[in-house]
Amino acid sequence: MNQTGIPDIIVGRLPKYLRALQNMTSGGIVKTSSQELGNYLGISAAQIRKDLSQFGEFGKQGTGYSVPVLIQELQRILKVDRVWDMALVGAGDLGHAIARYQGFIDCGFVIKLVFDADPQKIGQPLGTFVIQDIADLVTAVQASNIEVAMITVPPQAAQSVADLLVKAGIKAILNYAPVTLNVPGDVHVQHIDPVIHLQHMTYYLE
Amino acid sequence: MNQTGIPDIIVGRLPKYLRALQNMTSGGIVKTSSQELGNYLGISAAQIRKDLSQFGEFGKQGTGYSVPVLIQELQRILKVDRVWDMALVGAGDLGHAIARYQGFIDCGFVIKLVFDADPQKIGQPLGTFVIQDIADLVTAVQASNIEVAMITVPPQAAQSVADLLVKAGIKAILNYAPVTLNVPGDVHVQHIDPVIHLQHMTYYLE
Repeated sequence: MNQTGIPDIIVGRLPKYLRALQNMTSGGIVKTSSQELGNYLGISAAQIRKDLSQFGEFGKQGTGYSVPVLIQELQRILKVDRVWDMALVGAGDLGHAIARYQGFIDCGFVIKLVFDADPQKIGQPLGTFVIQDIADLVTAVQASNIEVAMITVPPQAAQSVADLLVKAGIKAILNYAPVTLNVPGDVHVQHIDPVIHLQHMTYYLE
Repeated sequence: MNQTGIPDIIVGRLPKYLRALQNMTSGGIVKTSSQELGNYLGISAAQIRKDLSQFGEFGKQGTGYSVPVLIQELQRILKVDRVWDMALVGAGDLGHAIARYQGFIDCGFVIKLVFDADPQKIGQPLGTFVIQDIADLVTAVQASNIEVAMITVPPQAAQSVADLLVKAGIKAILNYAPVTLNVPGDVHVQHIDPVIHLQHMTYYLE
């Protein structure tokens, strides 16, 4: 739950609806229904209608949803109708891959600061950035107004990095390290956990 | 839906329950309840009880669940009480990071084959593997009995790689490229989409 009283599990489905609608747009589809969206996502039409009804009235009975209008509404609700600057901590292989990841840029997530603890990496370029010393993280993030960060450090370093990010005022952390982070209640953490996805699929294998 | 008639959205929650229970075990917890598990995951206790009841009777009314027993049952249901060999296609920064990712090894997912199309990379070592020519993918995968693969190639190459994997008999693909893949109905695809997680969190930011 959150201040608006809408369960987090429903909030978490909205980006999936948005992604599906954006894929439809790319395919030239301008009208859809909860049934079609449900088939696309493996979610029931009733669930989709119920989820969306928490946020307002987006479709007309019998005529379905306008894809571009629903995209716009979801972007507004999720606050992604703007650019979000981000900090990246961990300039290893994964950090390098993420700094170049086209999927972030396409959706308005822009890396602005990159940190590492390795003296060999500090001062080196990573794409268009210069890797900064993690010792300067709190000062640099506080000066930047950035609220979103990604952690791509080894598992044993992830909690201490999270502590620094919290101290710097970061409110949303995308954690790639395979560990659970402890953060204050007002800081949001999402975990990129590829094993969850693999285990979902092995269920179906022989 | 699938052959067993259990909706995919329920199957997809089981790995999350398993992960939460494994974290509890690490913390020394041996008994839990649907309420506690629900609080941990932001899912209602009723939902958890309903999901688990699809697969059998795992807890006693009033006494809750044995954490190790429920872990064992979920591992059996998800078929992760065994080792799964995997193929990795794309030996760039992300491929390198993934080849070293401790989270896979800890959960019985073991990379056995690595492919790339770049002549500079073919024949080079990646950790304990030698990077193989993607031209040999179909033959090598068919000879290996591998059913699970990961795609870490640039977006424009992802569909043609998926086509090769399908031809080789792969039945489960974890796709890191920010594109939607078209595969036959009997091939499962999961997409690692970090933007979905970021958009989930920005909802809560000011």
